[in-house]
Amino acid sequence: MTVSTSDLALAHALADAAGAAIRPLFRAEFGLEMKGDDSPVTRADREAESAMRRLLAAERPRDGVHGEEEGTSEGTSGRQWVLDPIDGTRAFIAGRPIFGTLIALMDGGFPVLGIIDQPILRERWVGMAGRATELNGQPARTRACRELKDALLATTSPALFADDELHAFEHLDAAVRSTVLGGDCYNYACLASGHLDVVVESGLKLHDFAALVPVVEGAGGVMCDWAGDPLHAGSVGQVIAAGDAARVEDILDALACRGH
Amino acid sequence: MTVSTSDLALAHALADAAGAAIRPLFRAEFGLEMKGDDSPVTRADREAESAMRRLLAAERPRDGVHGEEEGTSEGTSGRQWVLDPIDGTRAFIAGRPIFGTLIALMDGGFPVLGIIDQPILRERWVGMAGRATELNGQPARTRACRELKDALLATTSPALFADDELHAFEHLDAAVRSTVLGGDCYNYACLASGHLDVVVESGLKLHDFAALVPVVEGAGGVMCDWAGDPLHAGSVGQVIAAGDAARVEDILDALACRGH
Repeated sequence: MTVSTSDLALAHALADAAGAAIRPLFRAEFGLEMKGDDSPVTRADREAESAMRRLLAAERPRDGVHGEEEGTSEGTSGRQWVLDPIDGTRAFIAGRPIFGTLIALMDGGFPVLGIIDQPILRERWVGMAGRATELNGQPARTRACRELKDALLATTSPALFADDELHAFEHLDAAVRSTVLGGDCYNYACLASGHLDVVVESGLKLHDFAALVPVVEGAGGVMCDWAGDPLHAGSVGQVIAAGDAARVEDILDALACRGH
Repeated sequence: MTVSTSDLALAHALADAAGAAIRPLFRAEFGLEMKGDDSPVTRADREAESAMRRLLAAERPRDGVHGEEEGTSEGTSGRQWVLDPIDGTRAFIAGRPIFGTLIALMDGGFPVLGIIDQPILRERWVGMAGRATELNGQPARTRACRELKDALLATTSPALFADDELHAFEHLDAAVRSTVLGGDCYNYACLASGHLDVVVESGLKLHDFAALVPVVEGAGGVMCDWAGDPLHAGSVGQVIAAGDAARVEDILDALACRGH
């Protein structure tokens, strides 16, 4: 047993609480703060995480919590909730409604439940180990991609790649049909619903990728790191999502600059 | 007299017609065609332009029409409607709801009315020469930006820049606080509403930029080319939008790689 009905209900409640904190602040005028890593942080980010933490403290006092804003508590249950109140902070401050709230439940270091919630668009993707991913209660499925040259690829920003990673990404970019930039977590959600074929990113932290895995895999896709290994709590942040599992080797080859 | 009440009503009707054609096809499964320039074209693009052209033929038979899909008719009135049914085709096919329909009325070669319509999000920015820009009937205003180093910059994709343009853009990118990618016409709309400070792009055609000018300028911003000159029917497609007119010289200096 990894994910219970009450876990799922709690995950929905967390997303509801985050959305309620975030919505009044979207496109509101207020000062921005800067963190040491130069990512913009908004009041919405802090208030949404606090709202989720209050719920977790009340409902799951033994579970660990790992949040972008307030750090990590290990807990004693072997389970950990991983929270990213606003994934796509730049999109948020730029007024784009496609940022999202990410909520994952980890068990033994692997994500077993994930939510990608779009509080403005009112779209919620829910993925769980062993169950089909749903978007607002309807099944979401990735699509087939017969050849890499047919693929629609997305990445938030090439500026997030180190030099050698950028070289690898450019090789992949040249091998696909078309590439779209921006998007943050929304790219993985759109891949889960069959609109995108590949998402490749680097520099992602646990709170950026944990929730994506159950959503994408429950929709029929695959997520792995740039070596093809499963993502887990210790992954270094090189992330691949493929809607069609049959294309993973092609993606890995392209990133390794191996031809076919 | 350039823009009449009936021009404005017609422009709204055009946006309504395009939206009605587009909405049923968003995230629908259907085959994609490719054009010679490799931009993805959807049935929604063609059907929305046809719907708008039917209205124009009925209501303004003497006006010219310039559309992305079906080319140009000059007309005899000295006025021309410029249509881009789906700006952000890649965003559309990737399942992102932030693509838009662009509608402009040109008089003597300059845009005097512009609409940026988001058919999925139901957001419509309307700008007219000499009037304040509105978003869904409410005033939209750009925001002040005291120094370029405070600016939030957007561009759809650095891949759209030629080599020397990319060098210029990177210089600007290094001078601002933060840069967000993707977005297409939505960036200009968000700038008009005071969420972004600068948008810089190149390779834009008339149908890509004509509608943006009245929206941005009616909101208090400035649009110009990379030489600082006003945009018109013959502009080469290097586009700058600045929310704060006082920053235009700084942007031009940064693009020209001149220090301060």
